[in-house]
Amino acid sequence: MREFLVVGHDAPTTPDFSLEDLPGGAGRLDLLCRCVTDGLLTSHGVREDARVHLVLGDAFTLTFDGAAVRQLHPDERSTAARIRAALERREDAIGHQPVEPSPGVSLVRKDFETTLAVLSDRGTPIQLHAEGAPVTDAARPDHPVFVLSDHREFAAGETDALASAEARRVSLGPRALHANQAITVAHNWLDTDGFSRY
Amino acid sequence: MREFLVVGHDAPTTPDFSLEDLPGGAGRLDLLCRCVTDGLLTSHGVREDARVHLVLGDAFTLTFDGAAVRQLHPDERSTAARIRAALERREDAIGHQPVEPSPGVSLVRKDFETTLAVLSDRGTPIQLHAEGAPVTDAARPDHPVFVLSDHREFAAGETDALASAEARRVSLGPRALHANQAITVAHNWLDTDGFSRY
Repeated sequence: MREFLVVGHDAPTTPDFSLEDLPGGAGRLDLLCRCVTDGLLTSHGVREDARVHLVLGDAFTLTFDGAAVRQLHPDERSTAARIRAALERREDAIGHQPVEPSPGVSLVRKDFETTLAVLSDRGTPIQLHAEGAPVTDAARPDHPVFVLSDHREFAAGETDALASAEARRVSLGPRALHANQAITVAHNWLDTDGFSRY
Repeated sequence: MREFLVVGHDAPTTPDFSLEDLPGGAGRLDLLCRCVTDGLLTSHGVREDARVHLVLGDAFTLTFDGAAVRQLHPDERSTAARIRAALERREDAIGHQPVEPSPGVSLVRKDFETTLAVLSDRGTPIQLHAEGAPVTDAARPDHPVFVLSDHREFAAGETDALASAEARRVSLGPRALHANQAITVAHNWLDTDGFSRY
């Protein structure tokens, strides 16, 4: 299992946004949509062993599960429409009870710290960070939980939560990448374990 | 210099398409837009040593040059609008004379074979292919020209042109990736040359 937790600091928490302005009015939802695509989709395929969790405005966690999701398309707009449809059901997410607007998509009222704690219990948290240890030297964990931020840096409280979870800092290369690009590289890093010996 | 040549088999050759239906009516233009983004943009940065060439319906080649392009945003819709604006100037592209609708963006009436021949003269053509030699074993060329296809396989004539250009076949991993994901991995492969020794 590979999990990706992406913090959308400016992401919407209500469905009142336009699909015609994802970068602006929808708080860089374009980036989060690309994280879903690159986390779960390959060419003509779905990564059934992967999940992408989006933290929306530190109020909700929206999860796309590759093993169960249906009709997920790679373009930003259709994924944003899925996120909007999930947020239309937000009133049904009470306490820590998730709502599942469609198979493999679930919305729950959990902030970053709470979701990180849940994921860290079952996997190995890894913070993708420009100053981390080079990934080329790192061991590949069985159940990595990659934690990424959107276009903003992690906030102080988020950094504290990452420290509490004992997240390792790993760098994918000398260039700072977009979150979805980092997800693509992380997948490839895991995909190519032993690849040169094929 | 790193160049990427992406064939958009169903891509539009006129500006008569809607920004609200990039995957359908615009012939998977969403994918080509992501190729531009992942070819040229990093987190808060532009890859000035990279160029992305899109072959549109085997009629035009549209080039985005990282060294000169301005106001390029990472979302699909704004890039599609740039492509549409370029196609609005298509009548000004006469013979092999390019038109430059904005700095760093040029449109020329060249098909895949012609553009591949031009690029192969100045760089090393590499076909990213699932059955190619593992990238982990391959030498990193100084001036690679990565050649990719959209959601379709290369057509017979394109495969012939790649053979004429003596393009090497290289595989980035055991999973077939979307073209833009392959671009991201290819960049990272070049970025991390010697990275573990940093």
